[in-house]
Amino acid sequence: MDRRQLRWQGWGRIDHRRDLSNAEQDYLAEVLGFEAGLPQTPVPELSQLELPSSRIGKRRLGALADIVGDEAVRTDRFERVFHARGQSYHDLLHYRSGRLESAPDAVIYPDSADAVSGLLGWAAEHDMAVVPFGGGTSVVGGVTASAGAGKAGVITLDLSRLDQTRGIDVGNGRASFAAGIYGPALENALAGQGATLGHFPQSFEFSTLGGWIAARGAGQESNGYGTARHWFVGARVATPSASWTTEHEPASAAGPRLADLLVGSEGTLGVITSATVRIRPRPETRSLRAYLFPDFESGLACARRLAQTDRRLAMLRLSDADETRFQSRFAALHRSPSIAQRAFKWYLGRRGFGAEACLMLVASHGGVRTVDRAVRNVRWVAGQHGGQALGAGPGKTWYETRFEAPYLRDPLLDRGVGVDTLETAATWENLPELYAAVRDAIRGAVGTRGILMTHVSHTYRDGASLYFTYVFPRDPTDPIDQWWSIKRAASDAIMANRGTISHHHGVGEDHLEWMNREKDPSSLRILRSVKDTLDPTGLLNPGKLIP
Amino acid sequence: MDRRQLRWQGWGRIDHRRDLSNAEQDYLAEVLGFEAGLPQTPVPELSQLELPSSRIGKRRLGALADIVGDEAVRTDRFERVFHARGQSYHDLLHYRSGRLESAPDAVIYPDSADAVSGLLGWAAEHDMAVVPFGGGTSVVGGVTASAGAGKAGVITLDLSRLDQTRGIDVGNGRASFAAGIYGPALENALAGQGATLGHFPQSFEFSTLGGWIAARGAGQESNGYGTARHWFVGARVATPSASWTTEHEPASAAGPRLADLLVGSEGTLGVITSATVRIRPRPETRSLRAYLFPDFESGLACARRLAQTDRRLAMLRLSDADETRFQSRFAALHRSPSIAQRAFKWYLGRRGFGAEACLMLVASHGGVRTVDRAVRNVRWVAGQHGGQALGAGPGKTWYETRFEAPYLRDPLLDRGVGVDTLETAATWENLPELYAAVRDAIRGAVGTRGILMTHVSHTYRDGASLYFTYVFPRDPTDPIDQWWSIKRAASDAIMANRGTISHHHGVGEDHLEWMNREKDPSSLRILRSVKDTLDPTGLLNPGKLIP
Repeated sequence: MDRRQLRWQGWGRIDHRRDLSNAEQDYLAEVLGFEAGLPQTPVPELSQLELPSSRIGKRRLGALADIVGDEAVRTDRFERVFHARGQSYHDLLHYRSGRLESAPDAVIYPDSADAVSGLLGWAAEHDMAVVPFGGGTSVVGGVTASAGAGKAGVITLDLSRLDQTRGIDVGNGRASFAAGIYGPALENALAGQGATLGHFPQSFEFSTLGGWIAARGAGQESNGYGTARHWFVGARVATPSASWTTEHEPASAAGPRLADLLVGSEGTLGVITSATVRIRPRPETRSLRAYLFPDFESGLACARRLAQTDRRLAMLRLSDADETRFQSRFAALHRSPSIAQRAFKWYLGRRGFGAEACLMLVASHGGVRTVDRAVRNVRWVAGQHGGQALGAGPGKTWYETRFEAPYLRDPLLDRGVGVDTLETAATWENLPELYAAVRDAIRGAVGTRGILMTHVSHTYRDGASLYFTYVFPRDPTDPIDQWWSIKRAASDAIMANRGTISHHHGVGEDHLEWMNREKDPSSLRILRSVKDTLDPTGLLNPGKLIP
Repeated sequence: MDRRQLRWQGWGRIDHRRDLSNAEQDYLAEVLGFEAGLPQTPVPELSQLELPSSRIGKRRLGALADIVGDEAVRTDRFERVFHARGQSYHDLLHYRSGRLESAPDAVIYPDSADAVSGLLGWAAEHDMAVVPFGGGTSVVGGVTASAGAGKAGVITLDLSRLDQTRGIDVGNGRASFAAGIYGPALENALAGQGATLGHFPQSFEFSTLGGWIAARGAGQESNGYGTARHWFVGARVATPSASWTTEHEPASAAGPRLADLLVGSEGTLGVITSATVRIRPRPETRSLRAYLFPDFESGLACARRLAQTDRRLAMLRLSDADETRFQSRFAALHRSPSIAQRAFKWYLGRRGFGAEACLMLVASHGGVRTVDRAVRNVRWVAGQHGGQALGAGPGKTWYETRFEAPYLRDPLLDRGVGVDTLETAATWENLPELYAAVRDAIRGAVGTRGILMTHVSHTYRDGASLYFTYVFPRDPTDPIDQWWSIKRAASDAIMANRGTISHHHGVGEDHLEWMNREKDPSSLRILRSVKDTLDPTGLLNPGKLIP
C-alpha cells in the first residue's frame, strides 16, 4: 500500500472522492441551523502544517538503517504527518488545527520480523518509544505518535511491508499471513483457494490483519464469521523482552490461552508480525434482506429472538427511527423515489409504519437451501414482531456502499460540520436504558442543532452492540474541546448504565479513562503486570490502553 | 453433596456399584495374560491408611473457626483423606499404596465468598497453602493437597457449600451460580426455566461449575454448546491480594478480556466463588445416531468434513477400530446379540466392514426440523465416506451409560488391572501422525499384554481431540513407577508430534513438565507474572500449572 496514494488528512485514496451535492449541503445547512449555508472550512496544506522537528540525528538514523535497511527509514514531512495520528474525528481536528503537537521522529518500514525485533532492541537502547502502525485507521487514538513520559523520542513502525501470505490450508481450515497484510489482499489470497475469513470491518480496505487482532475487531458479518476473538488462532510477536510464539492448537486445556491477551492489546504488549486465522469455504450464496418494524422496541425484540435462536445469520443490523428516517431522506436528495417506491411508502404508512419505523438488515451466508430456510425463518420471526419484509433492495444499496461512509466525513469537515461515532454493548435487558441514556447525553452535549442516529450492528445471545453517529455544527473556536465535551458526556453515560466503553473500536488514548473505570482494579493490575513482563521499559505505544 | 456418601478411595457414590461379571473377568484375564485369572488386589481400609498428622494446632483451628464458622472446619481422618488427592488412576494408586505422603492439615467448607476471602487472609498470615476443591474429580493432580516449598501447612477449601443459584435470566440468555454447584443441581435449576448450559463432561455428576471453568473443561456435547471458554461470561474471584470481579459484557473491545485467564487457571490465580454463564433454551429434540466406517481414516475424513461444514451438530464421537471392537466384544459378554443383530453383523461383513471398522456417534439438538435435516445431511456425508448408518441403538446405549465408565475402574483396580486415559488435540492434518505416535508410545510402555483404545470426541474446524484409554496388567511392585513410564512415553510422543498435553483434562501436577515444554517461554513468563500479581506469596494450589 503506497502511502502517497492515501490522504494524510482524511480517509482513503486520493483518487476516490465524495463531494456533497448542493441538495445535500442545503439539507444539512437547514437541519444543522446554518442560516447562511454551510461555511467553508478547508483543511490546511501539508506544507503549512506546524510539526515538531525530528529528535533523531543523522548518526542515530544511520545506525537504525544498518538494522532495518536504508529504504526502511523515512523522516520526510509526508511520512511523519501521515503517521502522526489515526483516523478519528478527534485526529482529523488535530490535523485541521494546522499544528501537530507530536509526530514520529522517524517512520520505519521493516520488511521482516527480525527487522522488527532489531528495531525494538535499538529503541530500548536509545530510550525511544515505538508505535506499531498497521493501516492507521484507529478511531480511538490508538496510533498517536506520543513519546510518552521520559522517552527521548518516538518511532512509528509501519508494518505494511509485512504483507506476505504464508500459507493457506483449506483442508485444515487455517491460513497464515504476515500481520501487515491489508484486508483486500488477504481476502483476494483466500478467494484464490475458495476460502474467506469473513472479517469485513468498515475500515476493511485500509486496515490490516494485525490491527484487527490488536484492536479486538469485529467485522460487519461477525454473527456468521466471529470477531477477532473467535477466528484468531495464534501469532508470532516481537516484544521488547523476547520474541513470543503463542499457542496455536485448535483447542487445549494446557492452562489459560495466553494468545487471547493479544486480542485487544493495541500494540502495547508486542508487535504482531504474523498470525494464523481460521478460515471458511466461501459461501455458496449470500442473502441480505431488509425488514421494517413499527418502532425500535419491536425491532429489538425481533433481533433478540433471532440472535438467541438462529445460528445461520451472518449479520443483523437494526437502525433506530432517527437513523432510518435520516438515511431515507438523505438518499432521496440525490435519487428521487420512483412511483413504485412512493406507492409502497404510502402502503407502509397505511399499515402503521410512521415516523418511528426502523429498518433491519439481515444477512445469511451458506448453502442455497440453508440460506433459503434462514430467510424464511427471519421473515416469519419478523412478522411475529410486526415487521414487514422490504426485499433485497435496501440491503443491496447498503452492501455496495458499506465501505463508503468514511469518505463522506472529509467533505463534511470541509463545510463546518462535525461528525463522530461511538459504540458500546450491553445485555439485552440493559440495552433500552443504555440507548436512552447515551442519546440523552449526546443530545445534551451537542445541543438541539444536531443529527443523532443509532443502530445495533452486532448481536449475541446475551446482548448486542449500540453504534451512535452524531452530526453537528462544529464549534469554530475550539472544536477539540467541543468534541471532548460530547465524548465525555456519552462515555460517562455508558459507564453509569453498565455499557462497555467500546464494542469494537478499542481503547487507545481516548477511552483510557473509562476503561480504567470499567475494569476491576484487579483486572487492571493483571494487565499492568503482563505489560511489565513483555515491555519492562514501557517503550511500546505509550499512553494507550495500559493504565 | 454429603461427602460421606462418596467413595474416598474411588469413583462416585457408595450406593452405586459396578462389579465385574465372571465373563468379564475371564475375558480380561485372557486378554491381559493373567494365566491364573485376575488377582485380588483390594483397597486398604480407611483406618489402615497412613497419613501425616495435621500440622495445625487447636489454637490456630480456633482462630480459623472464628473466621469461617465452627461447622466449616474439619480435621477428621475421612475429610483429610477424601481431600488428599483427585480421581486419576495415579491418585488411586497413591490411595491403594496404603500411605499418603500428604493430606490437608484441615479441610474448610466456607459458606460465602467472604469466608473464602477471610480464609485466604488467614492462610497468608499463617503461611499456609490453600487448595481450592470443587468436586475433586481432577485426573491430572489438580487438587493434590501439597503444601509446596516453604509453607507451614496446607488447607483444602471445599467449595461445595457455595452451591446457590443466584439468578436464571432466560431472556438475556444468562445464569449465575455460586461456583461450587454440582452439575446435576445446576442443570436441574436451569431445566426449571426451560434452559440448559449443555455442559456434560464425564464427571458431570461429581464436578462443579467453578471446576469446569478452572479446568478449561469441555463437555461431551461441546460441538453444540461450546467449552468453558465459550459459555463462560464472568466470575467473582477471591484472590490473596484482592477480590476480583471480571468483565461481564456480552462483547467488548475495552482491552484484552482478562476473565479468559480464569479458564484453565486451576485454582492457582484465585478461588472462583460465583460465575455467570451463557445458557440456551432446552432443545426441542435430541438425535443421536450411529454410523460405521470401513476404517479410521475414512471416519476421520467424514468427521473433518462435518466439523467444517455442519454447525448443527452437538457431538461427534469417532472410535478407532480397537475401541469399536473392544466395546462390542465387552458388551456382548453380558448381553448376547439377538438374531437380528447377528444377521446385521453378517451383512456388514459382506459389505466390507471387518476388523478395521470404526463406530461414529453424531448428536444433533434443536428444533425438530433442524435436527431432521442435520440427521439427513450426516447420513449423506457419511455415505460419501463409505459410512453405513446403524440407527439410534448404539447411541442410546452410550447415552444411558455415559457417566458410568469411571465406576468400572474401581473393580478393575481391585483385580490387578491398571486403567488410565489421556487426551490431546491437534490440527486435522497432524492428527493421523499424532494418533500413530501416541499409540506406539503407549504400546511400547504398556507391553503386549494391554488393551489400547482411542476416540475422537471433540471436533473443530481446524482440528480435533484424541482420547486414549489403556488397560493393562498392573505392576504389583511399583505401579506408580509403571504409570509414570507410560505417561512419560505418551506425553513425550505428544510433544514430539505437535499435540497439546491436554485437550480437556488440564495440567495440574502431572502435566506440568510438558506444559513447560509446550508453551513458549514468553507465555510462561506471562503466566508467572499474573500469578505473582494475584497471589504474591504463592499460597494458592502450589505445584500445579504454574512453572
